[in-house]
Amino acid sequence: MELFVKMALQAWDVQIKRTEKLINSLSDEQLLQEVAPGRNRGIYLLGHLIAVHDAMLPLFSLGEKLYPELEEPFIKNPDNVDLVVTSVKDLRERWTTIHSKLSEAFNAMSAEQWFQRHNTMTDEDLQREPHRNKLSVLMNRTSHVAYHLGQLMFIRHD
Amino acid sequence: MELFVKMALQAWDVQIKRTEKLINSLSDEQLLQEVAPGRNRGIYLLGHLIAVHDAMLPLFSLGEKLYPELEEPFIKNPDNVDLVVTSVKDLRERWTTIHSKLSEAFNAMSAEQWFQRHNTMTDEDLQREPHRNKLSVLMNRTSHVAYHLGQLMFIRHD
Repeated sequence: MELFVKMALQAWDVQIKRTEKLINSLSDEQLLQEVAPGRNRGIYLLGHLIAVHDAMLPLFSLGEKLYPELEEPFIKNPDNVDLVVTSVKDLRERWTTIHSKLSEAFNAMSAEQWFQRHNTMTDEDLQREPHRNKLSVLMNRTSHVAYHLGQLMFIRHD
Repeated sequence: MELFVKMALQAWDVQIKRTEKLINSLSDEQLLQEVAPGRNRGIYLLGHLIAVHDAMLPLFSLGEKLYPELEEPFIKNPDNVDLVVTSVKDLRERWTTIHSKLSEAFNAMSAEQWFQRHNTMTDEDLQREPHRNKLSVLMNRTSHVAYHLGQLMFIRHD
């Protein structure tokens, strides 16, 4: 695998591992709290990250989404305390499943594949803007996890 | 410039621009507030990002730090409301100055330079771990800005 693909994958892994470590250190009760007054609850951010990462499967032609039902409550809609979508325990399991699957699929991709267009772009788009490829999506998602990790950190009582 | 370097620089720019846009939309008074109860104030995160980014100049052999005096209050020490280091206005100006300087210097670097070791590594380190180069530092800093941007967003009253 080419060096820069390895670097981008490592940057992604670092953020996923940091987030995972934080989530594992928090109780279900803590994850049901808002990260700050009037802001999203931990469970919402957890579901949001799972749903956004799950969507990389079809976007990168790696298969269908595992959890299409999470898009509505965790991407299309804001947090809603009155709507119980699923349990924290269930989301913890889905977090592990989707990231294992992505890790396996990502590591099997060639450098050439990473520089191909993703599925919402046409061949002409890519010719005009060659930097908008799968690897650039991964780099954007890496910043996106970091963004929400900074918020999830506020749940900690330290 | 090689495609991958361009992608990493764009990912950095996206986070810097988003943070800048947020900072510009906040008043000095808002930036003097804590981002959440008991958490860092906006001014601290602003100074922290300036100090961390400033340190990339010597790290990448691009010159001396512009603001070495910011390291002590904004990196080595936690936020302290009783210590007035400087004004929000002054930090806004420094933000602009350091990011203009970095942007110019980064765009003048060749792809080869980005894959060289940074100044806290030896040649032997880089031979053993070739992915720990200047570009990997930039990618880590990109996640770092995103992390604190997620927190700064909480100052907004929307």
